[in-house]
Formats: sequence, structure tokens, C-alpha cells
Amino acid sequence: MQRIIECVPNFSEGRDLSKIERIVAPFKNQENFKMISYEPDADYNRTVVTLIGEVEAIMEALIPFVKNCIEEIDMNHQSGEHPRIGAVDVIPFIPIQNVTIEDCVNFANTMGEKIAALFDIPVFLYAKAARTEDRISLPNIRKGEYEGMKEKIKEVAWHPDFGKPATHPTFGSVAVGARDFLVAFNIDLATDNEKTASTLAKTIRQSSGGFQHIQAGPAFLEKQGHMQVTMNILDYAKNPIYRILEVIKFEALRYHVAVKSSEIIGLVPKQALLDSVKYYLQVQQIPYDKSMDLETLTAYAIKYLQFRDFNKTKIVEYWI
Amino acid sequence: MQRIIECVPNFSEGRDLSKIERIVAPFKNQENFKMISYEPDADYNRTVVTLIGEVEAIMEALIPFVKNCIEEIDMNHQSGEHPRIGAVDVIPFIPIQNVTIEDCVNFANTMGEKIAALFDIPVFLYAKAARTEDRISLPNIRKGEYEGMKEKIKEVAWHPDFGKPATHPTFGSVAVGARDFLVAFNIDLATDNEKTASTLAKTIRQSSGGFQHIQAGPAFLEKQGHMQVTMNILDYAKNPIYRILEVIKFEALRYHVAVKSSEIIGLVPKQALLDSVKYYLQVQQIPYDKSMDLETLTAYAIKYLQFRDFNKTKIVEYWI
Repeated sequence: MQRIIECVPNFSEGRDLSKIERIVAPFKNQENFKMISYEPDADYNRTVVTLIGEVEAIMEALIPFVKNCIEEIDMNHQSGEHPRIGAVDVIPFIPIQNVTIEDCVNFANTMGEKIAALFDIPVFLYAKAARTEDRISLPNIRKGEYEGMKEKIKEVAWHPDFGKPATHPTFGSVAVGARDFLVAFNIDLATDNEKTASTLAKTIRQSSGGFQHIQAGPAFLEKQGHMQVTMNILDYAKNPIYRILEVIKFEALRYHVAVKSSEIIGLVPKQALLDSVKYYLQVQQIPYDKSMDLETLTAYAIKYLQFRDFNKTKIVEYWI
Repeated sequence: MQRIIECVPNFSEGRDLSKIERIVAPFKNQENFKMISYEPDADYNRTVVTLIGEVEAIMEALIPFVKNCIEEIDMNHQSGEHPRIGAVDVIPFIPIQNVTIEDCVNFANTMGEKIAALFDIPVFLYAKAARTEDRISLPNIRKGEYEGMKEKIKEVAWHPDFGKPATHPTFGSVAVGARDFLVAFNIDLATDNEKTASTLAKTIRQSSGGFQHIQAGPAFLEKQGHMQVTMNILDYAKNPIYRILEVIKFEALRYHVAVKSSEIIGLVPKQALLDSVKYYLQVQQIPYDKSMDLETLTAYAIKYLQFRDFNKTKIVEYWI
């Protein structure tokens, strides 16, 4: 059986669509993996690419992708709302099928070593691939961002895991890692008040006393003109989507702010949706059938979890 | 202004009431602090004393109290359900007013040094006063209990923070520490189903992925015939009472179980109630006045937090 991973490289261009097309070209029309999506975000000035498929094929395509980012992106003239350390900011490997998290740590090492050797770009191993405590957390590595890393990387404690302790003059540096499947979930608030979104994020995130497996913060959506609580759910079994949504809903009541809708960035495993849909069906005493098809599940998720811009192709299982 | 602390010494006699009266005599009829309660538990064979007041006065009274415990309790003939390492098991100092947690660490050091010097009793500093990682947790210090400590204390890793590495022949040893105020809060469920209460406890407690500062589990109330989610809130600023209550309420909906009422065990700081009452007043757009009197606050807490058996004498500030 094939060894299937997900890989979600994030690069620091979210505005120039022709550049973006050129950058992701090595991921197009592939036999052994699929580019599920590439979602440019103009406010973030960042694009998140989601790949699923056979590990060797993905590893191979990442090299010309990194090369394209070197050619297309000059970090000295890049700015956006999302923190970042390089033209490619992160490359995480995620186990999906016939692959363990330990395998993914190995893939991260292989890829990190290659990127440093081929392009003279310093590489930080993060998350499950981290070699020291202070590199487990991506925000910790990112502190100071592209601009600050020029000095930070000279400190012994921040020497890269691969490559020389000096950032690439236009690319910066990159974090390569392994992690379990992470649900990127954002809740749309009917307010443009940054403080409200920030306070709400604090009620749920681990670092402020909230749930163990939640990273969250406020974000302003320029186009829509409203705030989001943007989050990563690091363990969707222990911190299910519905629970986080319901907490934000009752917390927002005190500010008289409605939850307008919510969105999944990238993909979500079927089980994560089943767990959350089940809650609402139980509350409403509607029979729950865990073998429901993806269409039914999608309809329930849109209805109860208030997903916008969602369809069954955002469910991991649709692709494998 | 006066420096006010809470101090909650626990001693290992919960059955012989005349002994207990003699032991707590130094806490009675004091000018500068009050003994709010002393609650003997026969099953535990242990008594929990709650003192509130001026720090110097409490420190002074603790010395004759420890002396009484040496005279009245022989640990070689003591047994009960509650784990313990000595005739006085723990002495925690808790900041209330004009006192920081760092001050309380100092009080623990002063008291620990005195007890060791005066009575030749080995002292372990715990919680915020701990000098090593493995002494933060009281259960960790208590492992092996009075009986096991005779050998354990000889290991270099378990040499006491004050005193010689040998237990007192009849008293044993004692843990002295500093911690923040802890709110003991229970939520009454309209069900006798243990599994439901246990599942609900897991949604909120830190050890199962829930909120950072919550310890929780299920408990059956024999007399009332229903289950509780029983919990300690270790940081009521970061995990306010109302938030925990609201999570349990919406989680219980899926089991079609109502929250009947709730209760505070021991005392609760005024600020903890203000924080939670404020939420409901904001939701209902009722003006919030942080200088409301204790009667008003009590009425709101009963109304919104569903407290039973509650009155203003359960608020810390009533006593100071």
C-alpha cells in the first residue's frame, strides 16, 4: 500500500496571482499526489498549499517549488499580516496513511538537509521534528520574524539545524517539521473591534489559560471588514470544533457580537466533522449515523458549524 | 494597610474532638486574625483549619499549634483515608490583601525554618515555594506517606529544605508552601449517571485537554441522589466560574441533562464573583458596578451562578 502524507507548504506571496501560479507549477498535474488547493490571502500576503499523496513524489516536487520561491519572492519587499521568517515560511509533513509521525520526522530531516545544501538557506526543524524544546513552537521560532532573524540566527541558541547561521539575503530562512493533522479553523465575528476578537481568542487558547490544544489570535479581514478569531486546533478529538464554536458564541454575547459564520482553512478529517455534527444532532434528538456520506456530512457541517465556502472536497477522505 | 493572608493548616486528627479542640486552641479568640472554620473528617482522620487575617499574628499562632500537634498526635498510631506525611501535613500561605505570592513564599520559608529549628521537624517547601520541580506537587512529596518518608528522606533528592534528613519519631515531617487562592466549585447535575458526569468533567479539566487551571471529576451526592462535576479552579482570573458553568450547561444539552444548581466549598474571593457576575450583567445589559456591596453580589451570584447554600459569609472579604 502507498505511503500517503499531507504536506502544507506556506509561502510569503498572497497578492500577485501570476507569481503564485509560477511558484506552484511543480505541484500541478501530478500522478502520485494532488495539489488539493492553494489559497492566496492578500491580507496575510501568504499562500497555503495543500498537497496529499505519495511521499516520494511530494518530496521531489518540493525542491523546484523552493527554487521558484527564491526566484519570485524578495522578503526585503514583502509585508503582510501573517508572521513569517522566509519566502517559504513552513513545510510541515503530516501522516495520513501507512506513515507514522516518526516517519514524518525523518522526511523533515531529509528535506531540511536538502534545502540547506542546494540553496544555502538555513533550516529550523520544528514541532515533532524539533531537536530542542524552544523550537517545538513555531511562534517561538518566528519571534522577530524575517527582519529580526538576521540577528537572532547569530545567537548560538538560534543557529539553524541545517545550513549556516546567516539568513539568505532575499529568502530568509524556513521551518521544516512534522506534526499531527491540525485543523485550521476561523470564526467570523460581526465586529471590526480588534480588542473584542483578541479577548475572545484568549478565552479559548492554551497560552492564556484556555483549552490545551488551541492556538488562537485575532485577525482582521480587510475585504469583509470584520474580525476573526483565527485558530489551530492541534487535537480535534480532545478539543472538538463545536466546543470551541459554542464557547466563542456565549463569550461573544457579553459584547453583543454575533458569530456570522466560520471557515476551515485547508482540509479537515471526516472524523473531526462527525464528532462535531454528532453534538448538534444529539442536542436536537436527530438520529446520528456515523456512516453518513460526505454530502450529508457537508450539509450538516454548513448548517450547524456555520461553515462558509465549504464543500466535500475540503474533507481529507474525499482525496484518498 | 494590613497585610492579609489566608492560611489553611491540615492536621492528622479528625476523630477525637477533645484533642482537636486542644490543638486549635491557639487560633481561638484572636484579635488580628480569625479562625473561619475547622472541619474534622473522621474518614480522612484529618482536620482542615481555615485562618484569615494579619500575617504576623497568624505566623505567631502557628508555633503553639505545631507544638500541640507534637504533643497530641503520634503518627505511629494514626491512620485514615487521606494521604499525609506528618502530624501537621501541610501549611499553605495564600495571598489575600497587600500581599503578593512572592511574599507568601517568604512566609513559607520563615515558617519552615522556624519549625525545623524549634522542634527538629524536617520541612519540605511545596507549590510556589518549591525549590525543585519535583516538590511543586504535594502528591509527589507525599508519595510513600508518613511511613515511607522514614527511608525516602535519606535519599539526597528528598533531603528536606529545612532540618535534618530524618523524620521526627512521632510527628514525621511537614510540607509548608505558598499558593494562589483556589476556588472549590461543584456543579449539580439532574442525573445519577456517573458516566455523564465523568464525561462532562473531562470536557473542562486540564488533564483531559480542557482549561489550563481546572482539576475536575465526577462525584455522587448520596443524600441528594444526583451527580456533581466537582472541581478546583486554580486560577479564577483565567478560568472564571461563569465560563466553566456555561460550558457544562451547553455540553449537558447533548445528554438532555439540566444543571440544577452549584455550590462553593469553603470561601470564594469577591473578585471571583465580580468577574463572573459581570458576564451575566453585560449579556443582559444591566449596569455593572464593581463597588456593589456583598449583599447585592451574593444575590446576583445566587441568581446567575445558581449557587445553593450560599451567603455573604462565604466571601473572603466578609472576614477582613
